[in-house]
Amino acid sequence: MGFQALPGFRDFEPEAMAVRRWVESSWHEASRRAGYQEWDGPPLESLELFTAKSGAEIAEQLYAFTDKGGRAVTLRGEMTPTLARLVAARAGGLPKPIKWYCVPQFFRYERQQRGRLREFYQWNVDVVGTGEASADAEVIAVAVEGLRILGLEPDDVVVRLSDRRLLRRMLRSIDVGADEEADVMACIDRLERDAKAVPRLEEQLGRARAQQVLGWCEDASLAEADEIAPVLEACEDFGIGDYVRFDFRIVRGLAYYTGPVWEIFDRAGKLRSVAGGGRYDDLVAGFGGPDLQAVGFGMGDVVLTELLRERGKLPPPPSRVEVFVVPIGAEMLRPARQVLRRLRDRRVRADGPYAPLRVGRGLKAADQAGAARAVLVGPSEWAEGSVRIRDLRSGEERVVPIDELE
Amino acid sequence: MGFQALPGFRDFEPEAMAVRRWVESSWHEASRRAGYQEWDGPPLESLELFTAKSGAEIAEQLYAFTDKGGRAVTLRGEMTPTLARLVAARAGGLPKPIKWYCVPQFFRYERQQRGRLREFYQWNVDVVGTGEASADAEVIAVAVEGLRILGLEPDDVVVRLSDRRLLRRMLRSIDVGADEEADVMACIDRLERDAKAVPRLEEQLGRARAQQVLGWCEDASLAEADEIAPVLEACEDFGIGDYVRFDFRIVRGLAYYTGPVWEIFDRAGKLRSVAGGGRYDDLVAGFGGPDLQAVGFGMGDVVLTELLRERGKLPPPPSRVEVFVVPIGAEMLRPARQVLRRLRDRRVRADGPYAPLRVGRGLKAADQAGAARAVLVGPSEWAEGSVRIRDLRSGEERVVPIDELE
Repeated sequence: MGFQALPGFRDFEPEAMAVRRWVESSWHEASRRAGYQEWDGPPLESLELFTAKSGAEIAEQLYAFTDKGGRAVTLRGEMTPTLARLVAARAGGLPKPIKWYCVPQFFRYERQQRGRLREFYQWNVDVVGTGEASADAEVIAVAVEGLRILGLEPDDVVVRLSDRRLLRRMLRSIDVGADEEADVMACIDRLERDAKAVPRLEEQLGRARAQQVLGWCEDASLAEADEIAPVLEACEDFGIGDYVRFDFRIVRGLAYYTGPVWEIFDRAGKLRSVAGGGRYDDLVAGFGGPDLQAVGFGMGDVVLTELLRERGKLPPPPSRVEVFVVPIGAEMLRPARQVLRRLRDRRVRADGPYAPLRVGRGLKAADQAGAARAVLVGPSEWAEGSVRIRDLRSGEERVVPIDELE
Repeated sequence: MGFQALPGFRDFEPEAMAVRRWVESSWHEASRRAGYQEWDGPPLESLELFTAKSGAEIAEQLYAFTDKGGRAVTLRGEMTPTLARLVAARAGGLPKPIKWYCVPQFFRYERQQRGRLREFYQWNVDVVGTGEASADAEVIAVAVEGLRILGLEPDDVVVRLSDRRLLRRMLRSIDVGADEEADVMACIDRLERDAKAVPRLEEQLGRARAQQVLGWCEDASLAEADEIAPVLEACEDFGIGDYVRFDFRIVRGLAYYTGPVWEIFDRAGKLRSVAGGGRYDDLVAGFGGPDLQAVGFGMGDVVLTELLRERGKLPPPPSRVEVFVVPIGAEMLRPARQVLRRLRDRRVRADGPYAPLRVGRGLKAADQAGAARAVLVGPSEWAEGSVRIRDLRSGEERVVPIDELE
């Protein structure tokens, strides 16, 4: 019949699943070390929760639909609305700062493009209830730690950091009005990927002022600005100085950032950003939550996995089992199951055949399963309460009492 | 604004999330020990994949809708269609038996009832490509092992096992025709929860034959039947004999089972079934996959968590951190961050304040975070390369060189 997954949706066969879990485990580990607690919300929410703050135009990209009860609902495309909803519901009940992380699957319905996914997994880390630069630095450090656990070093990835307050202050200093700000920021945001961004900037600001803006993009001394320096200093303390550099071009597309903003890129600069985050002090209230300052980031699985593959950092597929138990003769099938039971009870990943088979085929099955050892259960050894263990790499064998098997 | 989750959908705040992850971890552990590999598919599939085999009436319970592209799609309500789709696509490429497990979230859209959920998580374990009774027993053993890891003993839960072939054979022996079979099986299925089941059975079969059927329901000797005995024998080998008993009343609602069928209940008999499974040799082909025999089960998170709570088996909420670092004075904030870095690098779950605070408040925060130890970073010790560690239970303190902190 030839059914397929819907366009833009992925199947995870065991090999792909192992990669996904390996990436996720680094996310969990980095989060937990830094004292973040995992949470989750429903993959489906009322559409209104998502459009209340962002306006109806966001609905275009949402995987929204009408349910059987006539409700306008959407598969979640981000976590902040749900976070705001939960924080609002608990109001004063939670000690501040709230340090939460999650690993949700997100959905979007964009016009179909080749290879463009409609779902992805994203690590979200947020601190709600503090405006300290130390928190900005900490979430960056957690993101970097997640990458570091996966084997990515300062040679592989870079965190490019700027600040919306600094950007706004600099633009004011050359008399860019509040009404022009958004357009100019959009130009700066596109400088690297859009050849038309410079002419457009010149058109907006005139040549002289545009040159000043472009100068700031190369000006490392801006890293000493009051808005940036405390974050960089805390990044040094957190041991990620090598990963982070100031970059005036980082704006982040989303309108809601209010302070530091940053993105993580591969050093080669070939891929889209691996992660992005920043401070969003007005957003929780905007989504109907209490008035709490907040900072956080998102890191998706797709670009990250692409980068890891490109850098040769993906681990080899894990073996299915450690031990494979081979009954020698049909009458050894029951003893073999008892051996399996013993091994599994001792937390050894172990498997064996469901039906009698020749020893040669059993050893082949052991090899296919990735086992390092085979346990041969034969009548004479079994009668003496023993089994034969074969090391499948060296071929060495030894006879071991069943009670010592593990 | 007072947004809420959609009816029937759950939020997982950290405490509930920790319980969910704890349950899931037992599922992963039991699966892996027995050599099962994890896989996953999309939460959204084409509606046709789900209705092709089961017919349009199943669509009533599915969380189905029309997407923006006009496609009839559905949030997944079970995993078998996706499993069949993947196995079909890989056809002969996978070594048999295929031993896969997954932990998906499922969705259903039933008429709304108080407290009835529209989503839940379910552990699925399947063996595809064998008809051996040993595989039937193994999946039961894996299910039991998942429960045993959570602390549930033979006093807490029971696996009630029957067999569709046996059931059919017995009904034939009293001349129940193929056309009556489904109705009679539906009656047996409802014997325990529907007072009308006995009268209905008598109406269908007459009093004498109905009495015979009811007699089988109490007849332990049927456990020695050819269809059942090999499964029970293998269950003994796998060490779960205490958990399993034959029960003629187990039919399983779903039409597609072809051999052994079983359900796990709490011994007290108060809750709905914790898990259910069986052999479904025709189903993979029915969903468009190759003609492969298969056996598997599903175990949901909702009834299981209810049972664990009732039995007092839920673990205490995990502490957020092990260590809390308290800077003594504002100038110790940077050293405190460096201490945090060192601890987190050593995989210690550690936290500290983002801003200076009094020692008393710091210790209160340490307590709130569930820390077992506080690390006090004071100017005089820091000058000597040391910090003070306070055991928060005993109150004991000792000074430790930073290089030895872990």
